[in-house]
Amino acid sequence: MQTDTYTVRGYEADATGRLTLPTLMNWMQESANRNALDYGIGMADLTAHGLGWMLMRFRLTVHRYPAYGETCTVSTYPTRVEKYFIYRDFKVVSASGELLAEAASTWVTFAVERRAMVPLPDFIRRLHPPAVADPLPALPSKPDFSPPETPAQVHRRAIGWYDLDVNQHTNNVSYVQALLESMPEEFLRQKHLYELDLFFKAESHLYDQLVVHTWLTDGVGLHRLVQGADGRDVLWARSVWH
Amino acid sequence: MQTDTYTVRGYEADATGRLTLPTLMNWMQESANRNALDYGIGMADLTAHGLGWMLMRFRLTVHRYPAYGETCTVSTYPTRVEKYFIYRDFKVVSASGELLAEAASTWVTFAVERRAMVPLPDFIRRLHPPAVADPLPALPSKPDFSPPETPAQVHRRAIGWYDLDVNQHTNNVSYVQALLESMPEEFLRQKHLYELDLFFKAESHLYDQLVVHTWLTDGVGLHRLVQGADGRDVLWARSVWH
Repeated sequence: MQTDTYTVRGYEADATGRLTLPTLMNWMQESANRNALDYGIGMADLTAHGLGWMLMRFRLTVHRYPAYGETCTVSTYPTRVEKYFIYRDFKVVSASGELLAEAASTWVTFAVERRAMVPLPDFIRRLHPPAVADPLPALPSKPDFSPPETPAQVHRRAIGWYDLDVNQHTNNVSYVQALLESMPEEFLRQKHLYELDLFFKAESHLYDQLVVHTWLTDGVGLHRLVQGADGRDVLWARSVWH
Repeated sequence: MQTDTYTVRGYEADATGRLTLPTLMNWMQESANRNALDYGIGMADLTAHGLGWMLMRFRLTVHRYPAYGETCTVSTYPTRVEKYFIYRDFKVVSASGELLAEAASTWVTFAVERRAMVPLPDFIRRLHPPAVADPLPALPSKPDFSPPETPAQVHRRAIGWYDLDVNQHTNNVSYVQALLESMPEEFLRQKHLYELDLFFKAESHLYDQLVVHTWLTDGVGLHRLVQGADGRDVLWARSVWH
């Protein structure tokens, strides 16, 4: 189990003074990376086998967004290992022990040269998840939603230099930021993004032109990010706003 | 004097594995905010007097960009107080004491309702800067460069929700990110951004459409960010690449 503390910095808060969801996800990914390193299954360990990690599913629930200066503890740990999938949970608690957020995630390995998903290699399958009292249910590999094909509100977003990670792919969190920035201002300013369910379909690269399609009904958003050049799906998402 | 340590997280590094300049500037601004709070001249203290802080000049020199996992110490302190200007220096050192970066900055106060610069109020002018051995020279209030009026390479950038600070203005660092993302890829990937000199001219707001003009000659960039709607200058900058 990996446990890290993070204190909300000024630039990690949004115009309402609360931690941004992209920063919360970045904290979680950072702790996940550190935990993977400890297990000997970090990015470099996979690269040595011609493999890479890909986040496939991520479902986040946020009970309260902490304010500037609050210190939070992020815990993360693998919960299950299967032939193709490894599952990881996250919990974020406040200094007083209040549960702020929790997330379930599903990760796969891919062969870097073939860009194809492969079964988890033995050195990952041998991993023994720690015993935890309350693992979240495994996310279904296909989500229980799909964005419609009908015309939608459309925003455009180019992938820039600071969206890239060290593997030259777009950081998963950049997609989420693009998705959220395409929401109407009153949602961002006045509503609480309670749940976000993500299904990553493909990677993207520097200077790719992405198109964000958004359908909003009764406080629920459905989102489809596609490559502008060929219409290929990059991310499906569902957001619930209170 | 304010001293904070920051450890480079994965998402704070760019595609080359080094700390991004926007993150370095965010660290500096965070430490400056904390130091201002300690002096009783934080944003909330100014708001109570109908005033706000504005960064006018910032000149940064980066000797080495730290790598993922490196722990850095940011120190910042006011160096001089004048009728209109307060000056603040920054030093960033590695765990072994190597000077990684240093910056000089000039701040002014403005009356929030009139959007006009005003003399520093007495409670700021009374501040006694700490004695430091080697304060950087005060930056000239007007920079010693100006971007040409001739046609330039042009990029466009809309101000999004996550560019805003809690005062509903665009974070200064967002402009720098827009400026750097408009640079040719080979500069970002292969060169070292050694010096960045900034002259902030006006604020911007949510959904403003900015235009970034760039002129490059022999590893020196001149940059002008303007409002797309009326051509008003937002930022002038000069960058030196080795």
